[in-house]
Amino acid sequence: MIDQRNHHLFQPLLYQVATTLLATSEIAWPIRRLLRSRKDVTTLLSTVEGVDRAAHEVLLRGGQRIPYDTLVIATGARHAYFGRDEWEADAPGLKTLEDATTIRRRLLLAFERAELTEDPAERSAQLTFAVIGAGPTGVELVGILAELAHRILPTEFRRIDTNQTRIMLIEAGPRILPAFSENLSDYAAKSLTKLGVEVKTGTPVTGVSGEGIVLGDQPIAARTVIWAAGVQASRAKDWLGVPADRAGRVMVQPDLTLADDPNIFVLGDTAHVESDGKPVPGVAPAAKQQGQYAAKLIRARLTGKAAPAPFKYKHMGNLATIGRNSAVIEFGKFQMRGWLAWWVWGLAHIYFLIGTRSRIMVLLSWMWIFLSGQNSARLITQKETLKDEQ
Amino acid sequence: MIDQRNHHLFQPLLYQVATTLLATSEIAWPIRRLLRSRKDVTTLLSTVEGVDRAAHEVLLRGGQRIPYDTLVIATGARHAYFGRDEWEADAPGLKTLEDATTIRRRLLLAFERAELTEDPAERSAQLTFAVIGAGPTGVELVGILAELAHRILPTEFRRIDTNQTRIMLIEAGPRILPAFSENLSDYAAKSLTKLGVEVKTGTPVTGVSGEGIVLGDQPIAARTVIWAAGVQASRAKDWLGVPADRAGRVMVQPDLTLADDPNIFVLGDTAHVESDGKPVPGVAPAAKQQGQYAAKLIRARLTGKAAPAPFKYKHMGNLATIGRNSAVIEFGKFQMRGWLAWWVWGLAHIYFLIGTRSRIMVLLSWMWIFLSGQNSARLITQKETLKDEQ
Repeated sequence: MIDQRNHHLFQPLLYQVATTLLATSEIAWPIRRLLRSRKDVTTLLSTVEGVDRAAHEVLLRGGQRIPYDTLVIATGARHAYFGRDEWEADAPGLKTLEDATTIRRRLLLAFERAELTEDPAERSAQLTFAVIGAGPTGVELVGILAELAHRILPTEFRRIDTNQTRIMLIEAGPRILPAFSENLSDYAAKSLTKLGVEVKTGTPVTGVSGEGIVLGDQPIAARTVIWAAGVQASRAKDWLGVPADRAGRVMVQPDLTLADDPNIFVLGDTAHVESDGKPVPGVAPAAKQQGQYAAKLIRARLTGKAAPAPFKYKHMGNLATIGRNSAVIEFGKFQMRGWLAWWVWGLAHIYFLIGTRSRIMVLLSWMWIFLSGQNSARLITQKETLKDEQ
Repeated sequence: MIDQRNHHLFQPLLYQVATTLLATSEIAWPIRRLLRSRKDVTTLLSTVEGVDRAAHEVLLRGGQRIPYDTLVIATGARHAYFGRDEWEADAPGLKTLEDATTIRRRLLLAFERAELTEDPAERSAQLTFAVIGAGPTGVELVGILAELAHRILPTEFRRIDTNQTRIMLIEAGPRILPAFSENLSDYAAKSLTKLGVEVKTGTPVTGVSGEGIVLGDQPIAARTVIWAAGVQASRAKDWLGVPADRAGRVMVQPDLTLADDPNIFVLGDTAHVESDGKPVPGVAPAAKQQGQYAAKLIRARLTGKAAPAPFKYKHMGNLATIGRNSAVIEFGKFQMRGWLAWWVWGLAHIYFLIGTRSRIMVLLSWMWIFLSGQNSARLITQKETLKDEQ
């Protein structure tokens, strides 16, 4: 097991770290600890720089070579800026724990700077937040952000009224939550509007800078911009020298292996595989199903059994929260929305967390927030404090 | 209330964040939240760059000036390297949350690199840890570090035996815990030796580099070095242009004000004040007593009452933990040591935490560690990951 990070991350709750609801250690676990009882697994913290397919070796930064018989690549995706990589510095995305603490720091610093400044224009730019992309991540971010600004922070500031905060959810497509049915998209948009979010659909972003964003040709001063719009697969295609789709995902066979090498599997957000004639979406349930499939196939090969039938993706449904007490859920034809959907969402996510301790801690954090109205993890840390920035 | 950080930190448990027992949010709270019900207090996140005593204004970075009638300065201390500031990069100290996560990252990366490398000399240098300074912080750090190496990590690594870890506690003076009675120092030293720590007293450090340390003229390859040896007061003396002691602490009157300005108070680690003919030590109970004294004096002035008698420090005793189930405690003539002392220490610290939530969370974390033997916060985060370093 080779990873460049020492922890496994539960990405579906990452937006709650970014918005101060949860602490980092509540949704991430050391890989080593998860695998400690598997004496046949060696975990290495290192960065892969390539694969020598002729020698059957993985190349690590620093020059080490790790031999393999079967290689499974599941190196995920990063956010993509549609060719505008220069936007990243001013519009961070949300894929890693560091991304989440970066966004958390920027959100909190914006309110601090608004309180500190004596310039009304600067104050209003600091109190303007733009989230670009209205999939579940974008919707979940603005929901909590609105509650933070309108329900939690107002009593804590003296010079500013955080109720004046302007929060924009910007989507190039015609509606938010495009993977959901249209009536749930509408419900989510109305709920967000009620929370005080400006929902702007059919609005492509044409510019991002340290000053703010440009919508069409209209500049908007917004000091905090978050990117939730597109993803780009990891560089596995370059390591392997194989064809990929437009998002950089490696084209794999129906059994998740390379066309020219049955001993190399590519899974999850890094793979392009079709099921029922459609590409499998880049979501956690799909990656987990692929992991199980690959394990089954490898085991069949090692024990001389017949290979399983080609991989078939089973869609588990769509879930997204809207603020702290509403959600939309869709399982096939079954739909749910409102506070009961939030609880179903919450229980499902507690269930998917790893380990009893995390489950207890996350449940307690949520209950605490629910009962006290106070978020728990509002710390500005890391080097880039106000001190170092100015 | 002006602070360059957005949180108040409970420093006595900082070593537990550095050694993966607790998460950052369990021992730090947003200042704004602590003061939210005090409508007459405005909190500003900013860095002070000076005091204009003639104009009665505090100068903030960025050019803002904040007027005052009474000014209270309690800006603390940083670690000091006795004139060898170049050691800081390789031997970080432990004063802030960032310090704690830096040390945590280095500790965890050292084990990871030992597992990764194929060079025996490098492996042994990665598995050598040196803590310089044997006050409570140094003793508490090596205690948990020894338990981490010998009790928690062995089952998780495959190429290295973390029982081979070498942990050194280095002290220039004749004994560890010099503020304690000699018999408790001896007890602590013996307990640490039993945990596998090499206790080296009367051993000044003459060099620190990325390779390791030099003791006298003997170089020791140690990739992880932690500084717990000396402190230097904040720069308040420069802001005020007043005399200070050797550690940079401002000399104040028995009522904690400047000799030439009764409207400026200096408290805590930044102040040099005598009580019963001895300088008041730089510990949390002393700072809290000074805060209460200053509040009392200011209130007396505002209400026209008689000023209280000069500040008198009441020593509350010494406490230090040794690993996860032993401690030494001293209240005047009363002494305690062993596991019962650990529980007294633990309850005292839970009591001093701020807020019900933190108390519950820290208690749960400790109970979980106690019952499961697994530390909770073993995450390597921040920019300086293995990826960026190599």
